[in-house]
Amino acid sequence: MPELRHSDELRYWRKVVRAAALCHDLGHLPFSHAGEKEGLLPDGWNHERLTVEFIRSQEMRDIWQELTPPLRTDDIAKLAVGAKEGAKFIDSAFSDWEAILAEIIVGDAFGADRMDYLLRDSHHTGVAYGRFDLYRLIDTLRILPPAPEETEIQSSEPTLGVEEGGLHSVEALLLARYAMFSQVYFHRVRRIYDIHLREFLKRWLPGGQFSISVEDMLKLTDVEVMHALRQASLESNDLGVLPNRIIRRQHFRELYQRNPDDISEGIDAATAIHRAACEEFGSENVRLDQDSKGGGIVEFPVLGRDGRIVSSVSLSQILENLPEAAIDYVFVDPNIQDSAREWLKENRKDIIESAKEQSHESIE
Amino acid sequence: MPELRHSDELRYWRKVVRAAALCHDLGHLPFSHAGEKEGLLPDGWNHERLTVEFIRSQEMRDIWQELTPPLRTDDIAKLAVGAKEGAKFIDSAFSDWEAILAEIIVGDAFGADRMDYLLRDSHHTGVAYGRFDLYRLIDTLRILPPAPEETEIQSSEPTLGVEEGGLHSVEALLLARYAMFSQVYFHRVRRIYDIHLREFLKRWLPGGQFSISVEDMLKLTDVEVMHALRQASLESNDLGVLPNRIIRRQHFRELYQRNPDDISEGIDAATAIHRAACEEFGSENVRLDQDSKGGGIVEFPVLGRDGRIVSSVSLSQILENLPEAAIDYVFVDPNIQDSAREWLKENRKDIIESAKEQSHESIE
Amino acid sequence: MPELRHSDELRYWRKVVRAAALCHDLGHLPFSHAGEKEGLLPDGWNHERLTVEFIRSQEMRDIWQELTPPLRTDDIAKLAVGAKEGAKFIDSAFSDWEAILAEIIVGDAFGADRMDYLLRDSHHTGVAYGRFDLYRLIDTLRILPPAPEETEIQSSEPTLGVEEGGLHSVEALLLARYAMFSQVYFHRVRRIYDIHLREFLKRWLPGGQFSISVEDMLKLTDVEVMHALRQASLESNDLGVLPNRIIRRQHFRELYQRNPDDISEGIDAATAIHRAACEEFGSENVRLDQDSKGGGIVEFPVLGRDGRIVSSVSLSQILENLPEAAIDYVFVDPNIQDSAREWLKENRKDIIESAKEQSHESIE
Amino acid sequence: MPELRHSDELRYWRKVVRAAALCHDLGHLPFSHAGEKEGLLPDGWNHERLTVEFIRSQEMRDIWQELTPPLRTDDIAKLAVGAKEGAKFIDSAFSDWEAILAEIIVGDAFGADRMDYLLRDSHHTGVAYGRFDLYRLIDTLRILPPAPEETEIQSSEPTLGVEEGGLHSVEALLLARYAMFSQVYFHRVRRIYDIHLREFLKRWLPGGQFSISVEDMLKLTDVEVMHALRQASLESNDLGVLPNRIIRRQHFRELYQRNPDDISEGIDAATAIHRAACEEFGSENVRLDQDSKGGGIVEFPVLGRDGRIVSSVSLSQILENLPEAAIDYVFVDPNIQDSAREWLKENRKDIIESAKEQSHESIE
Repeated sequence: MPELRHSDELRYWRKVVRAAALCHDLGHLPFSHAGEKEGLLPDGWNHERLTVEFIRSQEMRDIWQELTPPLRTDDIAKLAVGAKEGAKFIDSAFSDWEAILAEIIVGDAFGADRMDYLLRDSHHTGVAYGRFDLYRLIDTLRILPPAPEETEIQSSEPTLGVEEGGLHSVEALLLARYAMFSQVYFHRVRRIYDIHLREFLKRWLPGGQFSISVEDMLKLTDVEVMHALRQASLESNDLGVLPNRIIRRQHFRELYQRNPDDISEGIDAATAIHRAACEEFGSENVRLDQDSKGGGIVEFPVLGRDGRIVSSVSLSQILENLPEAAIDYVFVDPNIQDSAREWLKENRKDIIESAKEQSHESIE
Repeated sequence: MPELRHSDELRYWRKVVRAAALCHDLGHLPFSHAGEKEGLLPDGWNHERLTVEFIRSQEMRDIWQELTPPLRTDDIAKLAVGAKEGAKFIDSAFSDWEAILAEIIVGDAFGADRMDYLLRDSHHTGVAYGRFDLYRLIDTLRILPPAPEETEIQSSEPTLGVEEGGLHSVEALLLARYAMFSQVYFHRVRRIYDIHLREFLKRWLPGGQFSISVEDMLKLTDVEVMHALRQASLESNDLGVLPNRIIRRQHFRELYQRNPDDISEGIDAATAIHRAACEEFGSENVRLDQDSKGGGIVEFPVLGRDGRIVSSVSLSQILENLPEAAIDYVFVDPNIQDSAREWLKENRKDIIESAKEQSHESIE
Repeated sequence: MPELRHSDELRYWRKVVRAAALCHDLGHLPFSHAGEKEGLLPDGWNHERLTVEFIRSQEMRDIWQELTPPLRTDDIAKLAVGAKEGAKFIDSAFSDWEAILAEIIVGDAFGADRMDYLLRDSHHTGVAYGRFDLYRLIDTLRILPPAPEETEIQSSEPTLGVEEGGLHSVEALLLARYAMFSQVYFHRVRRIYDIHLREFLKRWLPGGQFSISVEDMLKLTDVEVMHALRQASLESNDLGVLPNRIIRRQHFRELYQRNPDDISEGIDAATAIHRAACEEFGSENVRLDQDSKGGGIVEFPVLGRDGRIVSSVSLSQILENLPEAAIDYVFVDPNIQDSAREWLKENRKDIIESAKEQSHESIE
Repeated sequence: MPELRHSDELRYWRKVVRAAALCHDLGHLPFSHAGEKEGLLPDGWNHERLTVEFIRSQEMRDIWQELTPPLRTDDIAKLAVGAKEGAKFIDSAFSDWEAILAEIIVGDAFGADRMDYLLRDSHHTGVAYGRFDLYRLIDTLRILPPAPEETEIQSSEPTLGVEEGGLHSVEALLLARYAMFSQVYFHRVRRIYDIHLREFLKRWLPGGQFSISVEDMLKLTDVEVMHALRQASLESNDLGVLPNRIIRRQHFRELYQRNPDDISEGIDAATAIHRAACEEFGSENVRLDQDSKGGGIVEFPVLGRDGRIVSSVSLSQILENLPEAAIDYVFVDPNIQDSAREWLKENRKDIIESAKEQSHESIE
């Protein structure tokens, strides 16, 4: 990799990595990920694409030019969003070098973005998990050739990996992520608040969508949305109901959550219960929420103490089969909470049974 | 469970649990587990059996009798070592109630012994793992009937489980244990020190074994062993070599460690390399060390928020397939360290190859 | 104290303490203490008096009545604000018992309010001070008769004190408070932001004051003020300047800070420099900020291990003479920052000198 | 200071500081400070002098010579013990430069030795104090000219100080030290154990003294003393009594502790009670223990943000008047504990009274 051997190159890219890391989250909408779903952004847009818009805005281009040495705008844009997302809306291809540097920021296994939000959220929510040995992990990061057993499935170009001594820190980071999703991000009240917020935004935003103009986005922060929620909550019209789901905690209540017995039956019980509940109580009184994070394989090269390079997967059962955090919730209006629970008790068995039959029929 | 309904019973057993928890580790030899292997104790003896000896000693019987209410010696002994070990050397059978209480102390999933040593060792070694939410775990412990899907394989009697809200704390506890074994307890230098200590003990102990008399054991602590090591290190005879492996850090050095490539070949490379190295350098200059901890399934009942009881395994991929910490080390005398490494480089391929052939032959 | 001997009394007051502690901070204005100064509230009003207004509002009275047992509104109001503040706007006098319970919440030495904000602010600002042993302090709290050496200066009624073993936790709490004021609350940028915020509020609030109506206050939170700041910052009129002091960090810069040499001269250098700078640069370009916290004696009874009761002051040099956190700042508009510093360098000596003379004249 | 301007000098002294810091505590006797009192070392000897002996031993001289560049033995010796102690047994005088470097290790205000033991002891005893912001303190250390107001009392040569931003970290360090002495090091049980240990050592050591030969000292560690204690405890002769004070916790019990009422009388109550108790119960059954740490002024230069240098004392009330941790204990044999307490209750007043009279007489 020629970039590694030239001091000027190293100094230039060091600055680019810093600028890109600082800009990585610029494109987030108010209340972060909640606004990226269900048509609140035009098709083909997400926070990564908005981040690139910000980085390429004239105001920021001027900043990049004034630095010494000046930084190329698209170098920053590429590193800030990484190869996977960047390929969708940045024309020039990623070199191997750029792909490695982007991994430092957005990588699944040890991206700075992930390390940062886990430690910060863990600290500020006050939970006893989400921790890992940040310093050891960073100390052991290395640019490595791929492990021999991986060579078939990927390029033979170097990539980001760790020394053997840092492997357990990576495991701890990924288990911390699993714990934070299971316990915090996927908590049922946090999830229903996201749903209620999206419902409000759909009513409140002009045309039911966020503007993707940089100028408009700068004017629309958490403060404006909170203010709109509070103003709307004072009104007596039907818009006033939505904010109070959040402000006065009149949020929908859990009717059903993912249950292993139902999962072992091989059917999607949440969807079946949601459909039956909509028929019984009207769809305006019922919400379905399904999501999952993690799971699968996390593969990267590891440099052994004996100098051999092996795949992370061959050294770690955890990285070979990461646990998945998954949720299936059905929520109902608090006013019908009791009757809905009574109804589910009586009808659960039938709903599951009929879902099974339908699933068999559809297979046949 | 009648014991749960009588206040006198509850008060009595509460005291027994406390006494048993305090006595649980009484039977440990100097330097803990190191002394329990390779014939340093007579056949059939381990620290649990020694713990029972201490609890039943006249000195302690007097203490149990002087408490108000007096405690039955064997109630304490049973709870201190648990049903699995206790069955070997305690005559009276464990009631369901006693088995549950013993789980509080010795249980694999949430025994107090395990919780304690992980948190204490993590704090005092200063590592960034081995932590979990102790308070939440204890708060959510419940005596529960077994989950329906478990009933075939075990008794229908109640057992120790947790509320759903505590499940992730159990996961964190077991992952903390995995991390501590991988990073601390199985560290190569710690392991070779155990080997050198056992070699010294074998030479130094009368008859090459620990006495199992309570009186003798009380006289033999870490202090006596340390003192003997230091005294022996001053002598010029051949006994003096052994202490200096520890005191002057002249310990054997790693020649080989477990390697995933070799494991994937399906043969026991460590044993093959150990055998070849013994032939080449003499067995007095080579040591083999193999061990593993954890892995497998951790099953217990979990009380859902909806009142249903399900198996921990159906709720948690981590408990369904716990990662295993495993080591295979070959160590050599520091004097031949360089030549041994050179030799292994040249011969590794042949040794592995011939081990594969032998393994095939033995199968045929 | 009869209340201590009746179980019904204890149970009732326990609930009152809890309700009062929860309500203690209800009366805070947006951005907390910043709004309580310089005429932003009508004369005679502060957050404690507003807290009492909230507790006595019809909405909350209904809540107190619905509890079992129902709580008397003014019992809660008294405990929530304490004897010193309460005397100003609550008619009925505080009994000794009520005074002690209020101390648990508002006490200078170990009030829950203080313990809470120090630990919370320390955690969330991420600083390495502001910590103390909360659990030990609470464990050692006792209702005690006054120490013999105190009896002249105060009532002979029991008061809140600690066991000897908790004394160092009290010291640590008060030193934590000193550190948080010195390092965080009195930081120069935090202070100038308060000044700029008050300037904006004065312009923006109807009549330049907060309304003291409960209904109005509920409508005016941090969100509304932040929103108003952001809206005003978009306008081109002169109101737009004020928000940008905060939003775009165009805040006034430090020209002068408290300096021990100047203090030892016995004159108020900050005021003198502020006056001279106003003459030189116009008062619209200069701000003066002076404040202090802590210092002095913290006296309470301490129960010795030998059963004797002594004053905290006789046991602790720290409580006898608590360090004081104090600030004197002169700030100037960022546009004149450089010229103002140049000017001060040249004129400092003269300003101090002439201030000394004036101070002498005024004494004569 | 010429040393600051030459890169070779800086590199050399950097190595010397490291070596000196590592050697600083070499001279400690078994169980640290306990052995340095009451004639257990020959006159004129303490652990600093022993440290110098070790550094100058042939075995270590060889090490200093083998380093590149080789280090001068006495450079290390000087920095390891500092100017105050070093002047007693190192012939060559300390240059200003050497005095500053020694401060980094042994300094009262911010010596590495002190920082290290406070943080380590706090962590390993598990207490909630003894913490401070180590990283900020080290970041703000500076070599500074003395503050103008100090110049009369000391040399005008540069010395170790801090930037203004680190001043509170120094306060926190010194308050941490005060807290650790008050709560841990001066705890009554820890103190009486030191006394009993010294009594044993006096009987057990050949000639009642530690040898100051380097070779002998290397042979005598905590292990040897612990072993001797345990061996002696098994013997039935009178030597056996002493170890059991420690091993079986038959230590003397507190009869009297420092009391502010007594102190305010202006007499040394502990000494008076000790004398009276010796008369009543025999001196073999009574022990007196008096000590103090801290207190007074901690003065060093501080670099202000405005570039002016002022004394730490003028900026910090805490450094101007550091709290003192002080103890006065009278202990008695556990066998007479109850009768001694009864006796003290009856005679306390008389003892104090007569001590006051004697003190007056001696003045007249």
